[in-house]
Amino acid sequence: MMLFNTITIIGFGLIGSSLARKIKEQALCKTIVCADASQDVCDKVVELKLADAAYTDAAKAVEDADLVIICVPVGVYATIGEIISPSLKAGAIITDVGSVKEQAIKSLTPFVPADVSFVPSHPIAGTENSGPEAGFANLFEGRWFIVTPIDEGKDTKAVQAVCALWEACGAMVEIMDAPHHDRVLGITSHLPHLIAYTIVGTATDLEEDTKSEVIKYSAGGFRDFTRIAASNPTMWRDIFLNNKEAVLDVLQRFTEDLAELQKAIRKDESEKLFEYFSKTSEIRKGVIDAKQEVPPAPEKVRAE
Amino acid sequence: MMLFNTITIIGFGLIGSSLARKIKEQALCKTIVCADASQDVCDKVVELKLADAAYTDAAKAVEDADLVIICVPVGVYATIGEIISPSLKAGAIITDVGSVKEQAIKSLTPFVPADVSFVPSHPIAGTENSGPEAGFANLFEGRWFIVTPIDEGKDTKAVQAVCALWEACGAMVEIMDAPHHDRVLGITSHLPHLIAYTIVGTATDLEEDTKSEVIKYSAGGFRDFTRIAASNPTMWRDIFLNNKEAVLDVLQRFTEDLAELQKAIRKDESEKLFEYFSKTSEIRKGVIDAKQEVPPAPEKVRAE
Repeated sequence: MMLFNTITIIGFGLIGSSLARKIKEQALCKTIVCADASQDVCDKVVELKLADAAYTDAAKAVEDADLVIICVPVGVYATIGEIISPSLKAGAIITDVGSVKEQAIKSLTPFVPADVSFVPSHPIAGTENSGPEAGFANLFEGRWFIVTPIDEGKDTKAVQAVCALWEACGAMVEIMDAPHHDRVLGITSHLPHLIAYTIVGTATDLEEDTKSEVIKYSAGGFRDFTRIAASNPTMWRDIFLNNKEAVLDVLQRFTEDLAELQKAIRKDESEKLFEYFSKTSEIRKGVIDAKQEVPPAPEKVRAE
Repeated sequence: MMLFNTITIIGFGLIGSSLARKIKEQALCKTIVCADASQDVCDKVVELKLADAAYTDAAKAVEDADLVIICVPVGVYATIGEIISPSLKAGAIITDVGSVKEQAIKSLTPFVPADVSFVPSHPIAGTENSGPEAGFANLFEGRWFIVTPIDEGKDTKAVQAVCALWEACGAMVEIMDAPHHDRVLGITSHLPHLIAYTIVGTATDLEEDTKSEVIKYSAGGFRDFTRIAASNPTMWRDIFLNNKEAVLDVLQRFTEDLAELQKAIRKDESEKLFEYFSKTSEIRKGVIDAKQEVPPAPEKVRAE
């Protein structure tokens, strides 16, 4: 199912390289072009045959693109926008995979030519690993791709084309507005990552001998936080800075709840603790029912 | 390798039933006796053939025991101690699997007869599931079992016998003192669980429609917290109340670190965030090197 002639992917990390693998596997376009600021990454992309061409110059990479997929941290959207803007073909579509949508739109829109459509997107999929070698074709299988159109009336065809691509990559597509996306993801993704980074950071600051014991006995729960806190630091810095309001708001609620539990422990409020720990199991059931409980992994999909 | 004649396991939840399965599989004793306050659990244990006999009366269950393994929440140790104390054989050994060691020792010691040894233990293994059906024989494979002897000089033989059992169950044994255990586990296990319960609780309090979206898009990170927060609420209430000092101490450090990150986000301190998010990857590498990164699962072991 050929959806585009040429697709240019800017940024060949986990998400960009996974998309390239899936697009190639499903033959969703004729030509895949890679743009990445790192010559090492470009060399790796050529070596792994993830794209038909690879350039460190993003302007050159987008020249023939019918679809440009931006897969870089949100903090460099404006820079990328400025670089590629003069080279975009009339009628081209831009999409992205950034975790924050309001700021993604604000940063990129000034550089989107009138004859080009921008369809902001965000896949709820990922692993803790980064780089072109970390990607795998089935990363999006059974996962959500949220699309937050800027002007659905004007961009109808572009939105349809982009949604068709995400579905062809195995994802389920949901349309919502950008501020709503940012609030929901603030809870489901940004706060959990902030907490995980904090707790692993707290452990990192411990004395050297305690730290080695923390690692040794990490299977008690800590281990799962180290996985989450192993994600790309540049990407996460940009997410927190660009979804500041929603993150600080939900962090406030979390801090209040934590203070309440702290007080309950200090005051031996046995029943209150039991009630709190009981009510959380309902949400777990929901997650299992929604078939979102298993993290994506290349070997898992291979085994199916 | 027959290590004991009769082993009585009190409390047939995840840990108790996993031990029973492994002990039976490896023929580590002649007779396994189950004691559980719930008649339903006793019936299930007989049905699943996890023990040779099952009693709701713990006093009766320990009469012939050479080893008693206590696998109930720490909050009921004193009750269990009082019940079984008069029925224990001279020369019997008691051990346990409680997650808090100082309080476990304080609660049980008054009921340990002079001719009985108590060897406190704690396996760093588990899943989020509870009950006799949730257990599996290979839960302890490659995991740590921490033993915190009360008086190593006096209990030398009993400590050796208990350690031999844990090793025969596939675990690696480490000896340390109880207060040190409680401090280390406060960081690696108790704090992570408290945080996970809090964040899932925060989400539970959201409006109904946001809550369903949180579940839908939980793959962004939240999912992993729901797994941790699905653990047994009675057990966790008891852990927090019985390791109060260590938990509140490490919670204080965590709260300070979180406040610092919150401030860094509010004040756009880009470099500070990047540095914090970068330093945490070192610990992840340690966890992977220590081969503690993969959670135990029955199907995983079967697949090997």
